[in-house]
Amino acid sequence: MRDVAIIGVGCTEFGELWEKSFRELFVEAGVSAIQDANIQGGKIDALFVGNMSGGRFIEQEHLGALIADYSGLASLHIASTRVEAACASGGLALRQGIIAVASGYHDIVIAGGAEKMTDVDVETTTHALTAAADREWEGVMGATFPGLYAMIARLHMHRYGTTQEQLASVAVKNHHNGSMNPKAQFQNEISIDAVLNSIMVADPLHVFDCSPITDGAAAVVLAPADVAKKYTDTPIYVKASAQASGTLSLHDRPDITTLDATVAAGNRAYRMAGLSPKDIDFAEVHDCFTIAEICALEDLGFVKKGEGGKATESGMTAIGGEIPINPSGGLKACGHPVGATGVKQAVEIVLQLRGEAGKREIAGAEIGLTHNVGGSGGTAVVHIFGRER
Amino acid sequence: MRDVAIIGVGCTEFGELWEKSFRELFVEAGVSAIQDANIQGGKIDALFVGNMSGGRFIEQEHLGALIADYSGLASLHIASTRVEAACASGGLALRQGIIAVASGYHDIVIAGGAEKMTDVDVETTTHALTAAADREWEGVMGATFPGLYAMIARLHMHRYGTTQEQLASVAVKNHHNGSMNPKAQFQNEISIDAVLNSIMVADPLHVFDCSPITDGAAAVVLAPADVAKKYTDTPIYVKASAQASGTLSLHDRPDITTLDATVAAGNRAYRMAGLSPKDIDFAEVHDCFTIAEICALEDLGFVKKGEGGKATESGMTAIGGEIPINPSGGLKACGHPVGATGVKQAVEIVLQLRGEAGKREIAGAEIGLTHNVGGSGGTAVVHIFGRER
Repeated sequence: MRDVAIIGVGCTEFGELWEKSFRELFVEAGVSAIQDANIQGGKIDALFVGNMSGGRFIEQEHLGALIADYSGLASLHIASTRVEAACASGGLALRQGIIAVASGYHDIVIAGGAEKMTDVDVETTTHALTAAADREWEGVMGATFPGLYAMIARLHMHRYGTTQEQLASVAVKNHHNGSMNPKAQFQNEISIDAVLNSIMVADPLHVFDCSPITDGAAAVVLAPADVAKKYTDTPIYVKASAQASGTLSLHDRPDITTLDATVAAGNRAYRMAGLSPKDIDFAEVHDCFTIAEICALEDLGFVKKGEGGKATESGMTAIGGEIPINPSGGLKACGHPVGATGVKQAVEIVLQLRGEAGKREIAGAEIGLTHNVGGSGGTAVVHIFGRER
Repeated sequence: MRDVAIIGVGCTEFGELWEKSFRELFVEAGVSAIQDANIQGGKIDALFVGNMSGGRFIEQEHLGALIADYSGLASLHIASTRVEAACASGGLALRQGIIAVASGYHDIVIAGGAEKMTDVDVETTTHALTAAADREWEGVMGATFPGLYAMIARLHMHRYGTTQEQLASVAVKNHHNGSMNPKAQFQNEISIDAVLNSIMVADPLHVFDCSPITDGAAAVVLAPADVAKKYTDTPIYVKASAQASGTLSLHDRPDITTLDATVAAGNRAYRMAGLSPKDIDFAEVHDCFTIAEICALEDLGFVKKGEGGKATESGMTAIGGEIPINPSGGLKACGHPVGATGVKQAVEIVLQLRGEAGKREIAGAEIGLTHNVGGSGGTAVVHIFGRER
């Protein structure tokens, strides 16, 4: 198995991008990753496209071929593959790209993700997103994602004394980080009161506890680690790429406050990298809702079960804290174009480890982790990246 | 890179399976592949699910997690990934599975495909399938897949003198083969006259020139070649796994009678296996329409460009002919559950090479090829399998 490195990254702005189509978004991110890697497009020999729901958002499937074509690589007949795992589509596209390079089947690979969510009305979007849950047990019963995560939040509060203020402190921190990220959908600070006074979506989750609906794309260029320094002075190495499934339905889990797919993927990643949670300098985790970041802190082993809320409130997860979480602003402030998110997380890690994250830079960071979740935990993907091989 | 073998295969019946859901179909195929491989489910450490349009056919995405869960493997937290490339989704799922084993990331992998197409009305199906073409250049103009392939057929007839009878002879041969396949959707023989007198769908393609709308699933179990004989006396070895993209739109090709993605994927596969077209004993090719099989014969190098129609009429591609094509009955008679087709092709190759294909057995076959196409040629996947490593 070959080691793999990231030699280039690209990301569009995230937001309601009325003027850009799906294909334009992906190609913008891809081209900027190629330029960042300082390579010619002709060097690319495979492409992985993470996307959840092109079929319903833009009436387009076959997205691998679409992107190969629209980026001018169809004439080279590159292998191009779409990967889908709901909101973990980007993370899995990245993982498939890493495996393709590791295997020797492909050498220089673009792994990207994109979602164009604002071309349909919000009811259609909500309905399409529900296809990430179990249609036959959850979707047809009227469950929506805010509703599912609200149940997780409610039990977490009941069992561990987690407060609405603690939930809100996740959003406040992530908006603060997002205010320093020029690509973020929301670059404004918010207060605890603003979260608590915002509209209730699914009790106890207010609208400011929820990540937004977003258009955007992100891409990385992967290469065998042995040759990475031919392309860049600052390759970032993949130390682990791990994936796990959990039950698709929330009601099938022994404990809905634990995403056991996250626990399994995290443990596999730590084992693969030969590291433990305390070795991680910072992480981008899947905060689709504020409660999701709290569960992630716990399930990834950064804090004990039940202590995620308190840890956030204490500042432990802020930039400058013990384990900074979501310096990009996370899904909450950076935005959540579902197929792009898992790749955007890796872009942030690379920028941080290269020392190119500007005002939100985490000084001296050597090792970063990404955590991307599909649905309410049916899929989890964890990657660990390092400055050193 | 590790060599890879198929140690088990499974396939549901293909047809209008009102009584079976998507998840039931996939699990039925997967369980029968596991039983065929004589292994315990707990041995499986990754799953790849080929599917084109769960989002539109059954309002369900996140199909990797769905299948891991419904097959009882979520408790093992196996990695489970959905792969989509329109009608080549199955072939690409198979290829991702092969790469995963080749890389060393995973050991025992199920690669399968499924599509549940008959839960929606036929207009919805046609519209959903159009998402395999370029939405912005073809779909919104009213192009359907019969229409796109009719243009290919028309030019092929004009340029090479291909006749409607030659097109029909593809369907007649494949129905004959299908009549010997107990899993096929159509197990009845048809005549040239029946094809020519059937309803015109898109001139020159009659309804009997078109593959049907089908429910079904197929799965294979993959293992490292080095350990394959621990599981079975008759592993079938992957000699090549190749993939290529072409333009998504038909109008962007220099010559619409050539699927250049097929040419590229075929050449890559031959190179990888160290073989040429004359070394192939038989093939399962992507006959979504009769003209598609004729183009495939040419693009894969079995006959010269323009001679596919004549070759079929002559009996060259029949079982017992020089290069039997689609002994399973192909997409035409076996049926075309789009996400399953690319895997079903591999199942047929395995059955043939093991000598388990019953009345349709191709005596003495040693090497078989599969050819799976997405859309009108935006994606092509070619695999070569052999009895010997």
